Amino acid sequence: MSFEITILGCGSASPTSFRNPSAQLVQVQERLFLIDCGEGTQVQIRKHKIRMQKINHIFISHLHGDHYFGLVGLLSTFHLLGRDKELHVYGPEDLKNIIYTQLKSSKTYLKYGLHFHALNFSEQQLLFEDKRVEVYSFPMRHSIEVCGFLIQEKTKPRKINRKAVDTYEVPVYELNNIKDGADYVMEDGKVIDNATLTFEPNSSMSYAYCSDTSYYPLIAESIQNVSLLYHEATFGKELEKLAKQTKHSTAEQAALIAKESNAKQLLLGHYSARYIDLNVLLDEAKEVFENTLLASDGMKISL
Amino acid sequence: MSFEITILGCGSASPTSFRNPSAQLVQVQERLFLIDCGEGTQVQIRKHKIRMQKINHIFISHLHGDHYFGLVGLLSTFHLLGRDKELHVYGPEDLKNIIYTQLKSSKTYLKYGLHFHALNFSEQQLLFEDKRVEVYSFPMRHSIEVCGFLIQEKTKPRKINRKAVDTYEVPVYELNNIKDGADYVMEDGKVIDNATLTFEPNSSMSYAYCSDTSYYPLIAESIQNVSLLYHEATFGKELEKLAKQTKHSTAEQAALIAKESNAKQLLLGHYSARYIDLNVLLDEAKEVFENTLLASDGMKISL
Repeated sequence: MSFEITILGCGSASPTSFRNPSAQLVQVQERLFLIDCGEGTQVQIRKHKIRMQKINHIFISHLHGDHYFGLVGLLSTFHLLGRDKELHVYGPEDLKNIIYTQLKSSKTYLKYGLHFHALNFSEQQLLFEDKRVEVYSFPMRHSIEVCGFLIQEKTKPRKINRKAVDTYEVPVYELNNIKDGADYVMEDGKVIDNATLTFEPNSSMSYAYCSDTSYYPLIAESIQNVSLLYHEATFGKELEKLAKQTKHSTAEQAALIAKESNAKQLLLGHYSARYIDLNVLLDEAKEVFENTLLASDGMKISL
Repeated sequence: MSFEITILGCGSASPTSFRNPSAQLVQVQERLFLIDCGEGTQVQIRKHKIRMQKINHIFISHLHGDHYFGLVGLLSTFHLLGRDKELHVYGPEDLKNIIYTQLKSSKTYLKYGLHFHALNFSEQQLLFEDKRVEVYSFPMRHSIEVCGFLIQEKTKPRKINRKAVDTYEVPVYELNNIKDGADYVMEDGKVIDNATLTFEPNSSMSYAYCSDTSYYPLIAESIQNVSLLYHEATFGKELEKLAKQTKHSTAEQAALIAKESNAKQLLLGHYSARYIDLNVLLDEAKEVFENTLLASDGMKISL
């Protein structure tokens, strides 16, 4: 699976017996990112048989409890299970104190390196980058400071044209350079153009996580052409006033952001517990943006 | 139900998909006490359809996460559900800061009065008392400061002997005094002895919660003749060394405390996740103390 999202929880405010608070795993070419970590996330991870020690980066959007009350428990469990690999946590500055106060009170001295990175809420920020993937945060609007996250693959390696490579007898050690776009120079000096030796790479995928936020059109600028947008839809438009007041979004507003950002697909979540049948939210969003799905706990989406 | 214990979680360390971390409800004549509050407790409360706003007193034994990581979420949920009734939390002093740091970061200003009471770990302490019930803490021994809790009914009102009361034409407004032990003085000055007018009251029940602790015989002095003892049995005796090292108890040691305290019944819990079949722990305890039960998540015991 090259790019897969697993929804661990898509409820809001308090966990209920039928919907867990916010948490999701994003797997990109063997990297496992955790976004938000509401209460009960570690049990959700176990239920879905995910190898939790493969998570090396955790992103916390904001400090409402339904987005992070499971974090310190997860960090403790990593420790109890003998983790020694480093872990990076990105979140609001206060989170560092919240974590260390609790570790100190339980006299827990982590066996692994925990690196805390404070988020900047005023502008887009590159949080993580390696050869294949980038993770950005970007500003949103809520009752407390909050960031969205954008996870995107860099341009993928070009695909080797086996037949052409055989024809020109390209040695194996040249292949990585060629995948990266290099031409091949033969022994006699003749240059074989990269386009002759390769096909276009697979498209690069991207995923944006927007929860919690009021309707905030500037989000669209941060996530143009995203492959999949997860946007909170706490309420239906019949409760637009309440959405505005509590700085949440309606399903229709989530769809507007999907449209304005030219997203390929929209995934709704962070539903108010008052919605048992979620089709009212789905229908409302589809009026504006047809390619919309409802998130549910345990759902997996491959891009 | 006059005295009932509901086990919400009896696992240890990390929550698993089959056992929740420590939490239990003790209902005594309409009072609802919560003891410990591991991650996921609020969902357990909802699953068991318990009216959570009836909880007015929460007791936290110590600051290992499996005993309190669900607390701040529960306090937040009380708030979100509109609670205005006062709540009392008893726990280690550091817990106050842990709670308020998190409420502050989420800009949560509780609508209800939260009263925090710091535990004293050096001696037995009366934490709560009203007309019918007393709650004590008492010292135990673990890798960090920890208390056990004893919840006991005071002597119950004597039971009215209907026939005698009718014979002596005792007026209704005298009955409460008579239940409390008063004699009845008739209009002509003749004294009717209380023993004539009443039967012995129902026995008063008591419940002791001991988790986490190493084998610590002084516990028995704090809980003599307890009706039901919940004692941690993290390990079997084949792992007695590990129990000693981690300051936990074996099932056999739990049974020894039950015997030494002359308990009526023993309830084992706080099992290490390595035990799937718990009968090995049960058998071991029964060798020492026959009237032993295994706690399980969702179990209810009426005294």
